[in-house]
Amino acid sequence: MTSAPASVVAVGTDHLADAVEAQAVPVVRVDWRPPMPGTEGDLACVAADPLRKDANERALAAVLDVQAMLVDVAPAGELLGLAPGDFLHAGPPIAWADASGPLRGALMGAAALEGVVDDPEAAVVLFESGSGVSLDPCHHHRAVGPMAGVVSASMWMYVLEDPATGRRTFCSLNEGLGKVLRYGAYAPEVLERLRWMSAVLGPLLRDAVRATGPVDVTGILTQMLQMGDEAHNRNRAGTLMLLRDLAPAMVASGHEPAKVADALRFIGGNDHFFLNLAMPACKLMLDAARDIEGSTMVVAMSRNGTDFGIQLAGTGDQWFTGPAQVADGLYLGDYGPDDANPDIGDSAITETAGIGGFAMATAPAIVRFVGGSVPDALATTRRMHEITLGENPRWTIPVLDFQGTATGIDVTRVCRTGILPQINTGMAGKVAGVGQVGAGLVTPPAEVFPAALSELAHRTRARPR
Amino acid sequence: MTSAPASVVAVGTDHLADAVEAQAVPVVRVDWRPPMPGTEGDLACVAADPLRKDANERALAAVLDVQAMLVDVAPAGELLGLAPGDFLHAGPPIAWADASGPLRGALMGAAALEGVVDDPEAAVVLFESGSGVSLDPCHHHRAVGPMAGVVSASMWMYVLEDPATGRRTFCSLNEGLGKVLRYGAYAPEVLERLRWMSAVLGPLLRDAVRATGPVDVTGILTQMLQMGDEAHNRNRAGTLMLLRDLAPAMVASGHEPAKVADALRFIGGNDHFFLNLAMPACKLMLDAARDIEGSTMVVAMSRNGTDFGIQLAGTGDQWFTGPAQVADGLYLGDYGPDDANPDIGDSAITETAGIGGFAMATAPAIVRFVGGSVPDALATTRRMHEITLGENPRWTIPVLDFQGTATGIDVTRVCRTGILPQINTGMAGKVAGVGQVGAGLVTPPAEVFPAALSELAHRTRARPR
Repeated sequence: MTSAPASVVAVGTDHLADAVEAQAVPVVRVDWRPPMPGTEGDLACVAADPLRKDANERALAAVLDVQAMLVDVAPAGELLGLAPGDFLHAGPPIAWADASGPLRGALMGAAALEGVVDDPEAAVVLFESGSGVSLDPCHHHRAVGPMAGVVSASMWMYVLEDPATGRRTFCSLNEGLGKVLRYGAYAPEVLERLRWMSAVLGPLLRDAVRATGPVDVTGILTQMLQMGDEAHNRNRAGTLMLLRDLAPAMVASGHEPAKVADALRFIGGNDHFFLNLAMPACKLMLDAARDIEGSTMVVAMSRNGTDFGIQLAGTGDQWFTGPAQVADGLYLGDYGPDDANPDIGDSAITETAGIGGFAMATAPAIVRFVGGSVPDALATTRRMHEITLGENPRWTIPVLDFQGTATGIDVTRVCRTGILPQINTGMAGKVAGVGQVGAGLVTPPAEVFPAALSELAHRTRARPR
Repeated sequence: MTSAPASVVAVGTDHLADAVEAQAVPVVRVDWRPPMPGTEGDLACVAADPLRKDANERALAAVLDVQAMLVDVAPAGELLGLAPGDFLHAGPPIAWADASGPLRGALMGAAALEGVVDDPEAAVVLFESGSGVSLDPCHHHRAVGPMAGVVSASMWMYVLEDPATGRRTFCSLNEGLGKVLRYGAYAPEVLERLRWMSAVLGPLLRDAVRATGPVDVTGILTQMLQMGDEAHNRNRAGTLMLLRDLAPAMVASGHEPAKVADALRFIGGNDHFFLNLAMPACKLMLDAARDIEGSTMVVAMSRNGTDFGIQLAGTGDQWFTGPAQVADGLYLGDYGPDDANPDIGDSAITETAGIGGFAMATAPAIVRFVGGSVPDALATTRRMHEITLGENPRWTIPVLDFQGTATGIDVTRVCRTGILPQINTGMAGKVAGVGQVGAGLVTPPAEVFPAALSELAHRTRARPR
C-alpha cells in the first residue's frame, strides 16, 4: 500500500479520465480506436521511414516560425499577372463541367465584372466552350479564397509577407455576408459592391497599409484567440483590431472623408472582414512546410464545392481528393439541407494551421452559430490534439489554461485513429446566384487520408536506401 | 441497490463536487460556512421583513431593465454645474486631511488644470485651508470616476441615459495608463494630455455621438462578455467596438483629419478607454434600485483610497464604510506591496452590477494580469452566485454554457455566508504623483456588510406594523 495516488490508465470514454485528472492524479490515455481500414501496411512503412521524425520536426518548426505581416494591397492583375479572362478558384483543380452551382455563379459574376461578358448569364456559354477563359486553383498561385474563392484581374488582394524569408501569399478582400460573389451570388448589387471595392476600398487600404507600415497579422490572430474568435467563422475581434490599426492612416490618407467614412462603416459592419487576412496568414505558415521529404504533415485542406483535396509536406503539389461533404449546422431563414451545396472554399487552411474548428474552445459563442454546445467545443479542441504533431505556443486558448492550439495535422495519426479534422464552415446555396444558406460543421471525406498515406508509403518504398 | 447513481452531497472543497458533476451525477452543494459574527439577530429580523422579497424582486427587475445609451459628451462644468474650485472624487465623502496620496495628487493636478493654482504643489496649502475649494463624491452627482475619480469643471464627461426613464449618469473620459491623473500623477505631461482631451477629444466625441445617434453601451457590454472582457480590468473589445461605432462620424465630422487621426490613435492605443462607459452604465442600472424600502440589495461599492463604502437600496443615501484594503496582485516594474495605496475608485460599480471580478470566468486572459489562474476565475464567478439575488440574462458567460452573470449583491447573503464580493482593480502608488504600480484582486472590508445589515434591521424594527 502507498499513500500516493497510483497513475490511472483510461480507455475509451474520457469522462472518467477528466474527472480523475481534475483531482490531479496523472492519467495516461490509451487510444484503442482502430486504424482506418487497409492502412496498416502503409502506416507501418511510413512509421519506419528514417526521414519521418526529423522531417516532421522541421515541418512543424517551419510553420511555427512564420510571422505573417500585411505589407501591401494591390489588384490581382498586377500581383498575379491575371488577364481579364483568367479566373482563380478555391480548392483543387476543377473544370467548368464539374463545377458546383456556387462556383459557377461566382465565375459568371466575375466574368461580368471583368467585362468579358455583358451579363453574368452570358458567361455560361463562354465557360462551356473554354475559349478565352482559364480556371486555376488559388493555391497554385500562393493565394487562398473563401467559399468559391474566385479571383479575377480587377479584384484587389492583400499581400502577406514573412519578413525572415520574403515569401508572400495573397487573398482577396472580404465582401461581407448575404448575397456576395464568394457564395455564388452575381446580382447587380453584388457586382456594384465589387466595383466599389476595387475603386475605393482597395486603394484606400493600400495607402493606409503603406503609411502604417506592415501590420502584424500573426499578432492579431494571437489576440483574437483571447477574444472569442476562432478566426474562421468568427473574426469579430480581428476585424476590430485591423480597423484600429488602419483607421488613423485611412483618415490621414488624403482620401475624401465621406469615402473614408464609408470604408470604415463597411469594415466595421462586416465581422468576417478579417477572415481574408487570417487565411493567407495560415497559408504563409503552411507553405513553409512544403516539399519536406518524409514529412507526414498536411499543408493544405481545400474544397472547390465538388471535391475536397489535401496536400502533404512530403508529397509535393499532388492533391488527394474525395467528394466534398455537406456541413451539418444551422440554416438561415427558410433554407434547409436540400438547399446546401457541398463544402466549398480554401478557408479550411485555418484548420490546417490549427485554428478555426481546431480552436472551437476559444470561441464558445460560435458554437451556437454552427449548431453545437460549449462542451462539444471543448471536446473538439481536445480531440484535435490527437491528430496533430504539436502545439502553437503563440496561439493559446485561455479557458484550456492557455494550452497552445493543436497544430500540424499528421496524416499517420488521422489514419491510425480515424479521427477526422473538424472544420467550421459557411454553407453556400447549391444553386448559382443564391448566396449563403447557413453555417455548420464538416469533416473531410475520410478516404483522402489513406490515399495520401499510400502515396507517402510509395515514395518511402521507392527511395534509395 | 440501484443502478442509477445516487445524488451526492458535497461539503467544503469543491474538487470532489466538480469531478462528480463532470460525470453527470446531480450534486447538491451544502453551504456550511458560518454567518458573520454577531449578525444572527439582524439576519433573522431582516429575513422576517414582509417587504423584503417583493422589494428585492423589484430592485433586481429595475436594475435589469435599464438600457444604457451614450447620448452626449460635454464639459463637467456645463453638465454638473461645477465651478473651477469644485472637485468631485471617487468613493464615500472624505476631507483633504484624510485623503490618500493618489487622491491628493489628482486633486492637486486638477486644481492646476483649472487654473486655481499655477503649480500642482501650490494646491496643498489651498486644500488644507479649504478656502475656495469644495470636495464631493462623484456618486452624489450621479457620476462615477475610476481610481481617484477626480472631476473638475473643464473635464469632458460622457452622458448616459436610460431611454425608458430619462435618468442619466456621467463619467469623465479615460486618460490611458501609466502616469495619469486618476492614479494620482500630476506631472506636466499629465495636465497637457488633459488639456488636449478637453480641447480636441471631447468636442470630437461630442460631434461624433450627436451625429451617430445614441450608442448602445449595454449592448456593447453584452458583446464584450463574449470577447474576453470583464469590463473592469479588461475593456479591449469594448474599446474597439466603441471605436467602430464612432469612427465613421468622427471622420465625417469636419474636424481636421490629422486631429481625427490623433484621436483614433489615442482611443485605439488605450485598451481601458471603454471602462469610463462601462462604469456609468453600471451606475445607471444600480441607481434604478435606489430607495426601495426593505430591499437588501447593494447599489454602490466605492472607495476613496482611505475608506471603502457601500450603499443599499433599502437605506437611502447612507454610506457604510470601513478601511480600504490593499489589493493582492502583480506589480509593475520594481514596485511592490509597500508602494501600493489602499483600494481606490468608483470602478467597483462594475462588480456591484455583476461584471468585473464577478465575471472573471469570461476573461481568463485577465487572470494572469491580476495574478490568478483560470480555475480561480471560474470558481470566483461561480462563488459570486451565492451572494447575489439573481442573474442577468442579457450578460452571459459563454464558457459557463451562457449562464447569466451574478447580479444584485444581497447583504443578507454576504453576512450569512461570509463570502465577500470579489473586485478586480488597478493599484495606485500611495505617494502623490507616482501613478499606477500594479493590478490585483481585493475585497471590501468585511465589517461594512454587518453595519449595513444592522441599519436595515433597525429600519425594519422601526417600521410601523
